[in-house]
Amino acid sequence: MKQSHLVEVFNDIDRNAENFLDQLKRVAAQPSVSAQNLGVKECGELVRQMMQDSGLNVRVIPVNGGSPVVFGELKSEGAKETILLYSHYDVQPPEPLEEWVSEPFKPEVREGRLYARGVADDKGILVGRLMAIRAIRDTVGNLPVNLKFVTEGEEEIGSVHLHEFVRRNKELLKADAILWEGGDRDPKGRPEIYLGMKGLLYVELRSKTASVDQHSSLAPILANPAWRVVWALNTLKDRNEKILIDGFYDKVLKPTTKDLKMLEEIPFEEKDIRDTFGVKGFLKGAKGTQLKKTLYFSPTCTVCGFDSGYKGPGSKTVNPKEARVKIDFRLVPEQRTDEILAKLKRHLKKHNFSDIEVVKIDGEEPARAPMDSKILAVTVETAKLVYNLKPVIEPMLYASGPMASFVNELKIPLSSGECVARLDSKIHAPNENIRIEDYILGIKHVAAILLSYLPIHTKA
Amino acid sequence: MKQSHLVEVFNDIDRNAENFLDQLKRVAAQPSVSAQNLGVKECGELVRQMMQDSGLNVRVIPVNGGSPVVFGELKSEGAKETILLYSHYDVQPPEPLEEWVSEPFKPEVREGRLYARGVADDKGILVGRLMAIRAIRDTVGNLPVNLKFVTEGEEEIGSVHLHEFVRRNKELLKADAILWEGGDRDPKGRPEIYLGMKGLLYVELRSKTASVDQHSSLAPILANPAWRVVWALNTLKDRNEKILIDGFYDKVLKPTTKDLKMLEEIPFEEKDIRDTFGVKGFLKGAKGTQLKKTLYFSPTCTVCGFDSGYKGPGSKTVNPKEARVKIDFRLVPEQRTDEILAKLKRHLKKHNFSDIEVVKIDGEEPARAPMDSKILAVTVETAKLVYNLKPVIEPMLYASGPMASFVNELKIPLSSGECVARLDSKIHAPNENIRIEDYILGIKHVAAILLSYLPIHTKA
Repeated sequence: MKQSHLVEVFNDIDRNAENFLDQLKRVAAQPSVSAQNLGVKECGELVRQMMQDSGLNVRVIPVNGGSPVVFGELKSEGAKETILLYSHYDVQPPEPLEEWVSEPFKPEVREGRLYARGVADDKGILVGRLMAIRAIRDTVGNLPVNLKFVTEGEEEIGSVHLHEFVRRNKELLKADAILWEGGDRDPKGRPEIYLGMKGLLYVELRSKTASVDQHSSLAPILANPAWRVVWALNTLKDRNEKILIDGFYDKVLKPTTKDLKMLEEIPFEEKDIRDTFGVKGFLKGAKGTQLKKTLYFSPTCTVCGFDSGYKGPGSKTVNPKEARVKIDFRLVPEQRTDEILAKLKRHLKKHNFSDIEVVKIDGEEPARAPMDSKILAVTVETAKLVYNLKPVIEPMLYASGPMASFVNELKIPLSSGECVARLDSKIHAPNENIRIEDYILGIKHVAAILLSYLPIHTKA
Repeated sequence: MKQSHLVEVFNDIDRNAENFLDQLKRVAAQPSVSAQNLGVKECGELVRQMMQDSGLNVRVIPVNGGSPVVFGELKSEGAKETILLYSHYDVQPPEPLEEWVSEPFKPEVREGRLYARGVADDKGILVGRLMAIRAIRDTVGNLPVNLKFVTEGEEEIGSVHLHEFVRRNKELLKADAILWEGGDRDPKGRPEIYLGMKGLLYVELRSKTASVDQHSSLAPILANPAWRVVWALNTLKDRNEKILIDGFYDKVLKPTTKDLKMLEEIPFEEKDIRDTFGVKGFLKGAKGTQLKKTLYFSPTCTVCGFDSGYKGPGSKTVNPKEARVKIDFRLVPEQRTDEILAKLKRHLKKHNFSDIEVVKIDGEEPARAPMDSKILAVTVETAKLVYNLKPVIEPMLYASGPMASFVNELKIPLSSGECVARLDSKIHAPNENIRIEDYILGIKHVAAILLSYLPIHTKA
């Protein structure tokens, strides 16, 4: 990367800051609520147009019955490497609307921040990247690297068709590295870079013991589905949080010394978390690095919902016909959803709970990218330069996402990218916002990453 | 009992059948839905009037903040014994309204049956008893026995003030025997007479682990209330239906040889029950007398409702802040609600579940009346006469009711009375009905019971 190029590009970004913000406002003003099928198609078209305006060859690729992937390609003269950039153009529902200060799809700037649904997740990333390309093309000209944009419209509803899309388009998606959607800046302003995500197996256990509810006076002789599920659950996890399914931990990779060292660097404000959720302490009294180790590297078995019988006020003497419990298993490398599902079914059978139906609702594989990649090194180095702070590297997020569709299928290195959001960006909540300063720094960070991929050809 | 008197009274009842039915229609046309506070007061007033018309001295006795007890007294010249007659004038809500063929509070006769909310439970009993008194007074004149009517307006909402009422009015309620509200005629037409009821302790277990729901990615470090409740429940009852609370079974009386012999006589159509509720079999494969023994004499611990987290379609990745489970313990003599509640709390503490709150919702003590009483003998003998069938005697119902407020407090013998309802009477359901024939036979049965209490003085 030539320092002179970088300065030139950064100056261009600063000069165009207002224009680049307007471009983000344009996209943020277009609703694209995938869960409500509201404006998603129109937003896809807007993104297609904007990618084209940034010089990409764009194809809108349908997925089976869902919102299309907007795929944009930029071939750069003389470039040897290709970066695949993942982001999404759909957003979470804006409800509850009455809690928004300004309307969710009327972007508004207040005190240095831009407020609108999706500006942090994920439109600020998507548009910022297109702006970075424009800045480079408008100044130094040709990019030093080929680009492939994969922009999906279903991330907020579980990326339902993404895995299939990746599996079917391996040739099209061939690349040397992936720039994932970015992370947050931590409370000290440090950019967070992550290299993996937990997997998720979401199932419903259903027990149906009768065709209709019964008066509870019949309980001595008629089976109770809530009890069936309670007894079954009790065989799944003990009171020390140990999951009891045979072979559940078989493929779990222990955190390495390097992982643990990274954990120590990760800020985790225990008091803030306790205050936010109104809890007195953490499970098993954990704290410090031990707490972070548990959070980042433990697979889980969580009851997300339990529904049976009467739930209103007071009493109803009923022996219910049915019980349903929703369970979320967070998986860590190298666990696999299908294997855990099979083990769960075997477990229930072995413990004489064959009467309990297991229905898979969602699944995402855990993913971890290598720690010695060029893309990571480049992202870290340029982050230091742009943010003037040492980034925090998270070996893996404790949340889940569609990363595995790329990491496991394409087997290419990955790094998360620029950090447009902060803890107070209210992602998925009313008054979602980003600091305009972070948006602009994000554009610079992406530009710096791309410019790091020498060779570069200057403008004629 | 003089046979001539009985014939005279029965003839009078037959002559007045239409009039007596009209009186029931009048009361059934007056809504008295205690759960909705709909017309209860007006119905109490109507009952007061009707009691007065039957020659009783009536007092409307307020209960603390609830619907009053309509108390009617009849002192008979020369009578040595007093019978207390319990019934209630409130009814269950009529909903769902659209399932009624005729309106719930517009009594209608169709094919020999009277349809209206409350005719089976409990207005047919209450009005029929007043008609029996009229028939005796109009024919043989003076009754051979003193009467005390206790008619409450809160039975369908758990007799919330009845126990207190009984405890405070022991002198007023002094009697030699109690005639409880009647039972059903079984599928073969045999009248069912019962001598007891199970108790009920209805509690809610509540676990609150945080002030707000959390994203389930935080589950490795934040407690889950549904799991807390699952683990706690698992210590309460094992998969063989054995309740594990220390001392739970301590006071349970085993059924006697006589009880078991009675059970053999009780019809219990296993196939009908299986078909009605769509079950393949009964718990632990029980059948025959063993099944009935379990049904009538086992205390239970039933999950009536379990509510935690997300219960909608699909997935929501949430670690809930709260879980609530409703539990119904059916108790048998000589268990007591307060003792079981205390044992439950001790149990949870002992098993390190002090974080789980126990809230008592409802409670009724189990009750069993003696089997060698005059009132039972009289009820059985007159039942044979009236129904021309040998009655079925149930030592105890497997359902619960406020019987213990009388049996345990007043310590006087009891029998359930006439049988106005059948299995198809749709008690608590749309299209509640009784056969007019059963109503008239019920009036005759009550008259015969009262006339059995010699001495009797004929009309001057």
